[in-house]
Amino acid sequence: MSGEEMPDLVVHNIGQLATASPDGEWNLQLSKDGYVIIDGEMIVEVGEGEPPAARDALDAGGRAVVPAFSDPHTHAVFGAWRAQEFDLRLRGADYKNILAGGGGILETVAATRAKSADELASSLHEHLDVMLSCGVLTCEVKSGYGLDREHELKMLEVVSRVDSEHPVELIPTFMGAHAVPPEWGDDADGFIREMVLPLMDEVAGRGLVEYADVFCEPGVFTADQSRTVLRAAREAGLQGRIHADEMEPSGGTQLAADMNCASADHLLAAPEEELRGLRDAGVTAVLLPGTAFMLQKPYAQARWMIDAGLTVALGTDFNPGSCPIIDIKLIMALGATQMSMTPAETLVAVTRNAARSLGRTDRGVIAPGFRGDLLVLEAPDYLHLVYRPGAPLVRQVIQGGRPIYERGVDVTYAYRTTGEEGER
Amino acid sequence: MSGEEMPDLVVHNIGQLATASPDGEWNLQLSKDGYVIIDGEMIVEVGEGEPPAARDALDAGGRAVVPAFSDPHTHAVFGAWRAQEFDLRLRGADYKNILAGGGGILETVAATRAKSADELASSLHEHLDVMLSCGVLTCEVKSGYGLDREHELKMLEVVSRVDSEHPVELIPTFMGAHAVPPEWGDDADGFIREMVLPLMDEVAGRGLVEYADVFCEPGVFTADQSRTVLRAAREAGLQGRIHADEMEPSGGTQLAADMNCASADHLLAAPEEELRGLRDAGVTAVLLPGTAFMLQKPYAQARWMIDAGLTVALGTDFNPGSCPIIDIKLIMALGATQMSMTPAETLVAVTRNAARSLGRTDRGVIAPGFRGDLLVLEAPDYLHLVYRPGAPLVRQVIQGGRPIYERGVDVTYAYRTTGEEGER
Repeated sequence: MSGEEMPDLVVHNIGQLATASPDGEWNLQLSKDGYVIIDGEMIVEVGEGEPPAARDALDAGGRAVVPAFSDPHTHAVFGAWRAQEFDLRLRGADYKNILAGGGGILETVAATRAKSADELASSLHEHLDVMLSCGVLTCEVKSGYGLDREHELKMLEVVSRVDSEHPVELIPTFMGAHAVPPEWGDDADGFIREMVLPLMDEVAGRGLVEYADVFCEPGVFTADQSRTVLRAAREAGLQGRIHADEMEPSGGTQLAADMNCASADHLLAAPEEELRGLRDAGVTAVLLPGTAFMLQKPYAQARWMIDAGLTVALGTDFNPGSCPIIDIKLIMALGATQMSMTPAETLVAVTRNAARSLGRTDRGVIAPGFRGDLLVLEAPDYLHLVYRPGAPLVRQVIQGGRPIYERGVDVTYAYRTTGEEGER
Repeated sequence: MSGEEMPDLVVHNIGQLATASPDGEWNLQLSKDGYVIIDGEMIVEVGEGEPPAARDALDAGGRAVVPAFSDPHTHAVFGAWRAQEFDLRLRGADYKNILAGGGGILETVAATRAKSADELASSLHEHLDVMLSCGVLTCEVKSGYGLDREHELKMLEVVSRVDSEHPVELIPTFMGAHAVPPEWGDDADGFIREMVLPLMDEVAGRGLVEYADVFCEPGVFTADQSRTVLRAAREAGLQGRIHADEMEPSGGTQLAADMNCASADHLLAAPEEELRGLRDAGVTAVLLPGTAFMLQKPYAQARWMIDAGLTVALGTDFNPGSCPIIDIKLIMALGATQMSMTPAETLVAVTRNAARSLGRTDRGVIAPGFRGDLLVLEAPDYLHLVYRPGAPLVRQVIQGGRPIYERGVDVTYAYRTTGEEGER
């Protein structure tokens, strides 16, 4: 107890405490009139009724408390938005034609190369502020908009620097194999051999990344090329992640199982037999329904996957092209209303399961021995997270036992009729 | 110019000014490097380049400026959320069975009857705070969860009182014919004749409402019963609105045209020939895609309606049962990504068209002679409103020339590594 008699913090008067269990179950543990005791950064006790004393107390006011969220798949460092392209696509423009004209991901690569590290860090800070206000405390971030040594390193150094500056913990993934940049023409093999693999050794050696990812999709990288990348990752000491079968099946899901990846992501077009392989290999299926929503594609078969025994996590895929949705709560709502997940399953998917797919087994659960990373909701029940899409439901964020964020209680406005100034 | 030489306010350095035109066109008027001059509550000049001087200046910082939004369809006064029912429905429970067990709308009626006026006013204030933060300055609110004289009056008096307290302007609609309450059994005709019609005369006479609405749907009120309500509304000096063909076609759309309603709302199952009748009668189609999203129903045929020449507005349908979505920006995103509206059309639908369906022809357009109700977006382009669903894009709200809201710039958090306190 930090060398003192009393623990550091008690969060009490919790109307509903809702958490995934420490084991692999999908059912939530729900309790009423609860409390959580945190000492140092870790939870030491969870109970109901009268709480023991602690040095500090936080009154949840009868509200719901849930574990803080992890976002297991983002491309949150990028040089510019692509709103015009979104408008063109809604008007029927084809992505392949956009790409052929230097748009699409190539536009983001050009913009990201053009921006300084300071500019990229500043915009990453802004994104993380929004993520934090949505309850995220752990966030995977991929490189992959630099696509040459200089700019991939710039992206990863930005992630490392912002990780040390911002409360959201960043998990960096090397994704040199995100696309073949224009200067390599269609020489994907040469790009992998001469750029991706040497740079992967370098960034792994410098400790700049924890994972490596590859975009396995017809027209991007084949399953064979992806296997080359993931093998080299393993040799460099990195665990793999993979963009698999997002648009068309091409063996990516099978490859994730073969290579024992930490996660296989997207899976909109993944064949059922390959999904069973994921389950047997213990690979987490990271589903990204925001992308299907934004692109008007059929959603991944989340219901089938859960019923078949797969471990499923949900992420935003936050990026300036296919999915600019930054709010993980909105992703939970898509999971429930559009993919037939139960609200309880969506909570497990963005807490325990998302954290574990990132190797963070110390969070995503409210139980003794886990980190004191909690959210006090502006709601009496965790169900509101999916029942009220888009509502500002995160009232307070507690990180490692420290209250670090409180929702804009200090917005001011003037009342229309009386002219009196109001403090909200 | 308020008796002085200079106008009251100039909003300048507008990177993109995006507005519906004053006429009925769907195309936006877009300008760069713009300014808006407001004197008193009204816009007196809109231009590009160097702005004239004014007593106060607001620098938009190169951001986009759009008209403030109107939400033309809400049930924002209610006694309790229904999150548990939402969970049950996601697990496959049938709404008719829920209703038969006293749940569904009957649960909201019981909860609303049980709450005091102060309690209802307090929760309405909270909802309006969120709506304001989403850019809404004009909001229709229906009665219809009281369903007897005492509690319908209570609801409408709450709306009147909160309208005088909160900056969001409320447009009250009498919806005594929302459902038949339990004490009337299945005597819908008796309920209309003995409760709805006399109370409508009373609330119209007291000036408590501007519109009357009726739920025309198989199992609720027939087209004949709805006609009786709308005729009586007209005799009481109220214009009609109607919940028409939400689940199944039953003549509601045709009735809206026959009765020259201000709006026909929902229209998920409206036949095309009846929609043409709406167009010819000049009735606004108020579409509520949040409800289709939450209930997993097919969306209304927005693309067809716009191409056929109908006037289309978008609203939230904010209510505790079928659609708890409060963010009109999220509704715009649904319009664009799920109903094939262009982003420009969704902006027109929630500004000029929504305001006009509420009889507010003085707003929803940024042009001389319109109210100075503007939003400064945290984005360079109005497209972001639909391109980034769920993002907090409303930076400032200006109402009648007065800046009344600024987004939580003062949220504080502590940095994880350094322990330094940050001001954001």
